[in-house]
Amino acid sequence: MKFVLDKTLAAESDWICNLSLCEVRLSLNAAFPWIILVPRVADAVEIIDLSADNQLQLLKEIAFSSQIMKTLFHPTKLNVANLGNMVSQLHVHIIARFNTDLAWPTPVWNSGVTKAYGNQEKSDKISQIAAAFKEHA
Amino acid sequence: MKFVLDKTLAAESDWICNLSLCEVRLSLNAAFPWIILVPRVADAVEIIDLSADNQLQLLKEIAFSSQIMKTLFHPTKLNVANLGNMVSQLHVHIIARFNTDLAWPTPVWNSGVTKAYGNQEKSDKISQIAAAFKEHA
Repeated sequence: MKFVLDKTLAAESDWICNLSLCEVRLSLNAAFPWIILVPRVADAVEIIDLSADNQLQLLKEIAFSSQIMKTLFHPTKLNVANLGNMVSQLHVHIIARFNTDLAWPTPVWNSGVTKAYGNQEKSDKISQIAAAFKEHA
Repeated sequence: MKFVLDKTLAAESDWICNLSLCEVRLSLNAAFPWIILVPRVADAVEIIDLSADNQLQLLKEIAFSSQIMKTLFHPTKLNVANLGNMVSQLHVHIIARFNTDLAWPTPVWNSGVTKAYGNQEKSDKISQIAAAFKEHA
């Protein structure tokens, strides 16, 4: 089976870069600095569906991405989550949260807080995050 | 520094068992089969605050606990998350979600869906989960 990105994930996020295991994507909700890691593994739904080696690689990529989000955005707290109730394809949210953001302290997902990126703003954000991944790779 | 369990976590969950790194606790919201892993490490807030060895151990304990929750409850999806907006002490939620539960498909945290355990029900649930951890340890 070949990995194919879920259509909803594709519609709600833009590609930033590839790591060894995961595709790193930008959530199109501009209200939060928010990336999504998607392991390029066909039919994975739960973290425990991955092989032990891939689980370890996912952990490394979560830690690496968390450090980048922390360094770039200096959040109050990172939110790291695999939920998947809407989109079952395995994906991990890494969101930089601030005690000043409009959803704080509730989780972002059903907060009703959404904002669209302007084209230039989105392009700048993707470039900024991609550069940080490249610099620290 | 000695690890001391956060007071809110202590109030909102009951101890089930200890793993090498984490305390496993039962969320007192009976609306969902819901456990919480708390690494017994003083002052940890983010996953990346842990040493590389402890991050790996946390991953193993998340995977182990996820498998137990899957085997015991046969959920539609596991929700695995470190949020920490309310309680900064590092803790990881592992929640068995069903497409029939009252919050589905939204996350549980600000769903408004809560239920208290009866005393016997809580004791039975803790015994059931503790036995599964012991059996598979």
